[in-house]
Amino acid sequence: MKDVSVLRTLIEDALKGFSTPSSPRELYEPITYILANGGKRMRPLLLLLGCKVFNDDVSSAIHPALGIEIFHNFTLLHDDIMDNAPLRRGKQTVHEKWNSNVAILSGDTMLAQAYREISRTGHGALPEVLSVFNRTTVEVCEGQQLDMNFEKRDDVTIDEYLNMIRLKTAVLLGASLKIGAIVGEADAEQSELLYSFGMNTGIAFQLQDDILDVYGNSEKVGKQRGGDIIANKKTFLLLKAMEMASESQQMELTGWLASDGRDPSEKVNAVLNIYEQLRIRKHAEKKMDEHYAKAIENLSRVNGNLEWLDTLRAFTDSLMQREH
Amino acid sequence: MKDVSVLRTLIEDALKGFSTPSSPRELYEPITYILANGGKRMRPLLLLLGCKVFNDDVSSAIHPALGIEIFHNFTLLHDDIMDNAPLRRGKQTVHEKWNSNVAILSGDTMLAQAYREISRTGHGALPEVLSVFNRTTVEVCEGQQLDMNFEKRDDVTIDEYLNMIRLKTAVLLGASLKIGAIVGEADAEQSELLYSFGMNTGIAFQLQDDILDVYGNSEKVGKQRGGDIIANKKTFLLLKAMEMASESQQMELTGWLASDGRDPSEKVNAVLNIYEQLRIRKHAEKKMDEHYAKAIENLSRVNGNLEWLDTLRAFTDSLMQREH
Repeated sequence: MKDVSVLRTLIEDALKGFSTPSSPRELYEPITYILANGGKRMRPLLLLLGCKVFNDDVSSAIHPALGIEIFHNFTLLHDDIMDNAPLRRGKQTVHEKWNSNVAILSGDTMLAQAYREISRTGHGALPEVLSVFNRTTVEVCEGQQLDMNFEKRDDVTIDEYLNMIRLKTAVLLGASLKIGAIVGEADAEQSELLYSFGMNTGIAFQLQDDILDVYGNSEKVGKQRGGDIIANKKTFLLLKAMEMASESQQMELTGWLASDGRDPSEKVNAVLNIYEQLRIRKHAEKKMDEHYAKAIENLSRVNGNLEWLDTLRAFTDSLMQREH
Repeated sequence: MKDVSVLRTLIEDALKGFSTPSSPRELYEPITYILANGGKRMRPLLLLLGCKVFNDDVSSAIHPALGIEIFHNFTLLHDDIMDNAPLRRGKQTVHEKWNSNVAILSGDTMLAQAYREISRTGHGALPEVLSVFNRTTVEVCEGQQLDMNFEKRDDVTIDEYLNMIRLKTAVLLGASLKIGAIVGEADAEQSELLYSFGMNTGIAFQLQDDILDVYGNSEKVGKQRGGDIIANKKTFLLLKAMEMASESQQMELTGWLASDGRDPSEKVNAVLNIYEQLRIRKHAEKKMDEHYAKAIENLSRVNGNLEWLDTLRAFTDSLMQREH
């Protein structure tokens, strides 16, 4: 198995080398700020891994990898405005630290910069890479819109929820791997298999997030336990509970959802109690495992460098088990 | 001379053929709304004209032309949020009709759609077209940021102002023509001449806008006479007046700039009076004519189809004289 830290260094170097102009300061400072604010760099790593599986030379994948990371941070920046979020990775969000206008325009600039990096793909692969990226940018916007719509709806189905997280989160992981594969000169079938692997893994990741919010070690996860419950977020767990609940359990859940003013920990405990009765954790883990199993099945059909395939598998495995 | 209306029809047909998905409705309705809300379609027309000058077949320029028009409308959509504008072309702006979040996300989607159309340039021209477009999108963002910065500054120079309108407005006209030329297989020098022609024309257009706000027939212009004066907008006219004013005229101007609460028409008349004393209109017209003369000089060095060059010249001439 190869060491993923080599690729991590390539990405951090590319980010360090990504210098924004100094003027207008109001436009570029927030970009430097958000890009310096860490994160796991999961997407550019997947992109480089996708390339390595087919081609040992990843030099032409560096610019697209940087583009994917800039794009991901653009989505965070604009989503945080829309969600009115005060913090991101423990620091003030851009619209809080500066203001909404700065956040809108810096975000727009980042989307343009992401395209600029993506455009630096070698000419042979460029049309195909752009086609994947173009489809993905629009899908991510659709996912964010659906997520906002769901906040106001009481009849969201589990299928609708899975489609939303596919668009909002999972397609970008698929696209990262696929772009890497295309740059690495994989054929259409092989790069599509990596796409499906990434997409199914992404859905599994999001389901894991839903589970960890309730059952994770809140110190390690770094968020308040049951934050989704307090915020009435329509996670897989809540939707499954509403689907499976008896009439009285449904009334109780609905009551707690309407109880915004009451003691949060009382609400979390009450909803948790219903989750226990309905064995919601097991159901969520089953759905998560299903998607990750699909992902692994996709991966098993990829014909590439075995050591890098192992590394890729170990990388997503480690992310899947981070708090079990 | 050829008839520009043939190209206008091509653009309207492309816009009609540009169908957005029906779902999520909240994301796509505002896009259909803003694209249907008219406008002069100046940028896609320039793009097709730029192509026609070098190549009679403009079929491969249609997608980039559509991309440029979508991009332009994206900038209007986001600028209107930042400027808190209630109306655009006589209709409610998107953030007014829906809300800011919808306007942010629909705008993001339009930027992605613009790139999708630009990406449909034939493979040979694609890298060069993308390179022009990537630079331009970032420059337009920089221009908008400078424009917002200038609202809060009292020491904006005329050179800074000219640089701001170059970035915010003029480079997109240059880029439209240049992309058309590249698709039409012009060589680098020729397409750069069209870029300079478009950029200088764009600066002249903006200076004309500044003049028309004060001296135009307000019914034909469709805006309140002296709207820029009432809003304390730092136009070329105001900056030139501040530069040329005697100490007492400077005090008077500064006083009127601070007099937000008073009778608007009294303010307009008083500032106009100072403009008359300083012959500001002549100075602004001189600067405008200088830029348009530079533009025409650039155009005179283009070796292309003479009939289409005449059409291009007649098109920008007609825009330059719309309200003289």
